[in-house]
Amino acid sequence: MAALLWSTKSCVSIISRGLRTYGTPSASKAVMKSDPLEPDAPVVHTAIPGPRSQELLTELGTIQNTGAVQFFVDYERSRGNYLADVDGNVMLDLFTQISSVPLGYNHPRLVKALLKEENRATLINRPALGVFPPGDWSSRLRNALLSVAPPGLNQVQTMACGACSVEHSQKAMFIAYQRRQRGGQPPSPEELQSCVEGHAPGSPNLSVLSFTNGFHGRTMGALAVTHTKWVHKLDFPVPDWPCASFPNLQYPLDQFHRENRAEEDRCLDEVKERLHAWEKKNCPVAGIIVEPIQSEGGDNHATSYFFQGLQDIANDHEIPLMLDEVQTGCGATGKFWAHEHWDLKDAPDIVCFSKKMLTGGFFYKDHLRPQEAHRIFNTWVGDPSKMIFLEEVVNMIKEEGLLQRVKDTGSYLLSGLYDMQTKYPGILSKARGLGTYCAIDFKDADTRDKVLNELRQKGVHLGSCGNCTIRFRPTLALFRDHVDIFLDAFNSVIGGLKS
Amino acid sequence: MAALLWSTKSCVSIISRGLRTYGTPSASKAVMKSDPLEPDAPVVHTAIPGPRSQELLTELGTIQNTGAVQFFVDYERSRGNYLADVDGNVMLDLFTQISSVPLGYNHPRLVKALLKEENRATLINRPALGVFPPGDWSSRLRNALLSVAPPGLNQVQTMACGACSVEHSQKAMFIAYQRRQRGGQPPSPEELQSCVEGHAPGSPNLSVLSFTNGFHGRTMGALAVTHTKWVHKLDFPVPDWPCASFPNLQYPLDQFHRENRAEEDRCLDEVKERLHAWEKKNCPVAGIIVEPIQSEGGDNHATSYFFQGLQDIANDHEIPLMLDEVQTGCGATGKFWAHEHWDLKDAPDIVCFSKKMLTGGFFYKDHLRPQEAHRIFNTWVGDPSKMIFLEEVVNMIKEEGLLQRVKDTGSYLLSGLYDMQTKYPGILSKARGLGTYCAIDFKDADTRDKVLNELRQKGVHLGSCGNCTIRFRPTLALFRDHVDIFLDAFNSVIGGLKS
Repeated sequence: MAALLWSTKSCVSIISRGLRTYGTPSASKAVMKSDPLEPDAPVVHTAIPGPRSQELLTELGTIQNTGAVQFFVDYERSRGNYLADVDGNVMLDLFTQISSVPLGYNHPRLVKALLKEENRATLINRPALGVFPPGDWSSRLRNALLSVAPPGLNQVQTMACGACSVEHSQKAMFIAYQRRQRGGQPPSPEELQSCVEGHAPGSPNLSVLSFTNGFHGRTMGALAVTHTKWVHKLDFPVPDWPCASFPNLQYPLDQFHRENRAEEDRCLDEVKERLHAWEKKNCPVAGIIVEPIQSEGGDNHATSYFFQGLQDIANDHEIPLMLDEVQTGCGATGKFWAHEHWDLKDAPDIVCFSKKMLTGGFFYKDHLRPQEAHRIFNTWVGDPSKMIFLEEVVNMIKEEGLLQRVKDTGSYLLSGLYDMQTKYPGILSKARGLGTYCAIDFKDADTRDKVLNELRQKGVHLGSCGNCTIRFRPTLALFRDHVDIFLDAFNSVIGGLKS
Repeated sequence: MAALLWSTKSCVSIISRGLRTYGTPSASKAVMKSDPLEPDAPVVHTAIPGPRSQELLTELGTIQNTGAVQFFVDYERSRGNYLADVDGNVMLDLFTQISSVPLGYNHPRLVKALLKEENRATLINRPALGVFPPGDWSSRLRNALLSVAPPGLNQVQTMACGACSVEHSQKAMFIAYQRRQRGGQPPSPEELQSCVEGHAPGSPNLSVLSFTNGFHGRTMGALAVTHTKWVHKLDFPVPDWPCASFPNLQYPLDQFHRENRAEEDRCLDEVKERLHAWEKKNCPVAGIIVEPIQSEGGDNHATSYFFQGLQDIANDHEIPLMLDEVQTGCGATGKFWAHEHWDLKDAPDIVCFSKKMLTGGFFYKDHLRPQEAHRIFNTWVGDPSKMIFLEEVVNMIKEEGLLQRVKDTGSYLLSGLYDMQTKYPGILSKARGLGTYCAIDFKDADTRDKVLNELRQKGVHLGSCGNCTIRFRPTLALFRDHVDIFLDAFNSVIGGLKS
């Protein structure tokens, strides 16, 4: 085990070498943490990226574009909420691999699961799950996935990543739409033949309605419903599917209730208009896809009113409402699924997941279940080795009441962000969040990027989204003490900007 | 370790209980095998699927469509070339999870890699590889991937699965095509804006040329170039891209040289015609995608002449030739990459991989490298934990000379198939193959399916493809003794059909 553990002793020894540390809690107070071997505080002693990261970047740059690489990580020495880089810096990680680390680095429960003899065959032999599933597959699906299924959804399909989950969810909607069109009749010989060639009627002109600033992935079907930055879409031939405005709410919400209601009504009207327009274009909409909180697009929230209205429209048109919870799922908002905040009349028809769930996939209602074999399928359709770890994550969330922890830490973080925007009104605005799924806007992108960079130099690692937003995507095991470390660094950086 | 190992002792004990065994080598001869703990012979003592598989099927059927499930597997008791099911049957596996097991089940080298302390952090902490790669990422890419890169390709991008590899390869081609169209100028503001909305000019009308009976995956971009069975494509709105005929060769090849040359010329002419037609339709072709051997489509081969001609056409049109080696790669044809059999003038521009490579991804030439960050990207872009195992696979292929083994076993298998089609000319035809990547056709699909089923009952597990073909997709560690077991069972089953 030794090599894995970032021991408290080694952390202290670095601190005692006189390196800079930030936000260290007072000596009289024990630091709250879920993993006893997590460091107490960040330690930064080089620029980030440091010299070793720079070397590795040059090396990697000879075999691929490395423009997106921020720094190289020492995963062995990362622990809990702390990410260690290859230059010996240790950062409080509030971005967690683009929101995909549920419990923290090298969590002891995951190490234990890795070392269990009965898990070995699953870790080594990746099956073609759709054809030759392991004997324990059904029970793994029940324990790891169905035990946290969104209320009302009883079917589940695993996939290897988020984009594939969205792609195959869309396919489930297209299949269901065409089945209804056929009124119970089997497909015609003409349909069966023409689809192989990629023509109508077998390949019909159908679409999925999405929203401005929505992000759903980078394969062609997922890109068709993605509307974020040019870098995601330039040069790619994607179908022209309907896109309606996502609400652009004004903050603080309690001061703009009337305006925001009008904005959401405008967007809902646009949805109805687009459904009608694409029907008239002979490219009917087979389903609606939306994120509960638009993440890549800028942490854009809408109210329960909007989502309830959207579900009403979907029901009126007898098309499914598909929620992309790839980033919002798995507890980060204080409920296991973000849409549980909305008091929907019915369950959504499809809920996609990935990232912190460790496996991709989607839950869906019975009416979206394909009737034929091999319709929603590929060689691997997921990876049982990821289910081993997900089962631990889910058990830990339940046993340690992590959703409650997220709520508590999240409300503490959000009130800290409110204080900061009150203190720096010309720089910060629109503090918002559910659970620890928080964000705050900057006056412009340059300031945001400068602050992110300086925060990193103070040992706090965060991510950006939208035009001028920072997003908080910590593990589910974040405590108030971690928030204090962030707030101290944030205050210091923003204060430095002003002077 | 004990639970993992399918011990010779337990195998013998089942045999000694008087169950049926097939193809057992004579007692005087030691069975050749790469893994000493691999069973000596199949053991079948229930119908397949057996009663336990049936129970599990019913259970799994309550939460998803299970139409494609053949039986449930006991991966702990599977070993080497032998797959154990949950009913205690042990089959010689010549299909290997749809061609995705390189060395065999529970290979000791993979177990060892799993248990190495220095691999733990990689197995537990899945990174956002494109942004926060581990310190050893560059060296893992070099050891596991670049050391087996197709000659002439020096860039590599990992991905999580085959479909994503195809999708992102296509994107690399679209980016390169449009860059050339711009003649070195940056994209216009109109392009940057319109692409986000999904319109021209930022989302241009471009296509990829593919072939009849080609299979490349099940996400929308990959489906657009897939033309196999209706079950893969019905109801899905895919773009109408050009599709040319793949050669339909007559066998035996040496008796139909003139006819096959004419057929390949016809197909090459069609490619030229389609390129021209789509150019005129204002949907120019940005690249050509083809499998070295069409696998899902029926193990359709073409000659070097065809592929050399195809490369000439691609070069004439200044578009890339992209080879989908998801199934053909990683040694199964006796060379690491199937296209190495063709003596191409230049390296192909892109080579996609997945399946036996354990990770998805693609090799590509410099000119296809995106110039901006985040263009070929997603959260995970692969999984370093798979690279641990791939590195072992690649080392084993080199150290144990597995490509030579594949050639030797493959020629023995193919000559056995020739014998069988000579013996049963009304039933079998078109025995063909490279290495152990072999296939044979049946007079019709019903006969093929009946034979597959009866073979399974004799403990030999194979897969189908195309309309009436069985395909051989064994591990790289198959010996002549394994082939004997198959041939005995095959002869017995086909002989039974005749009577």
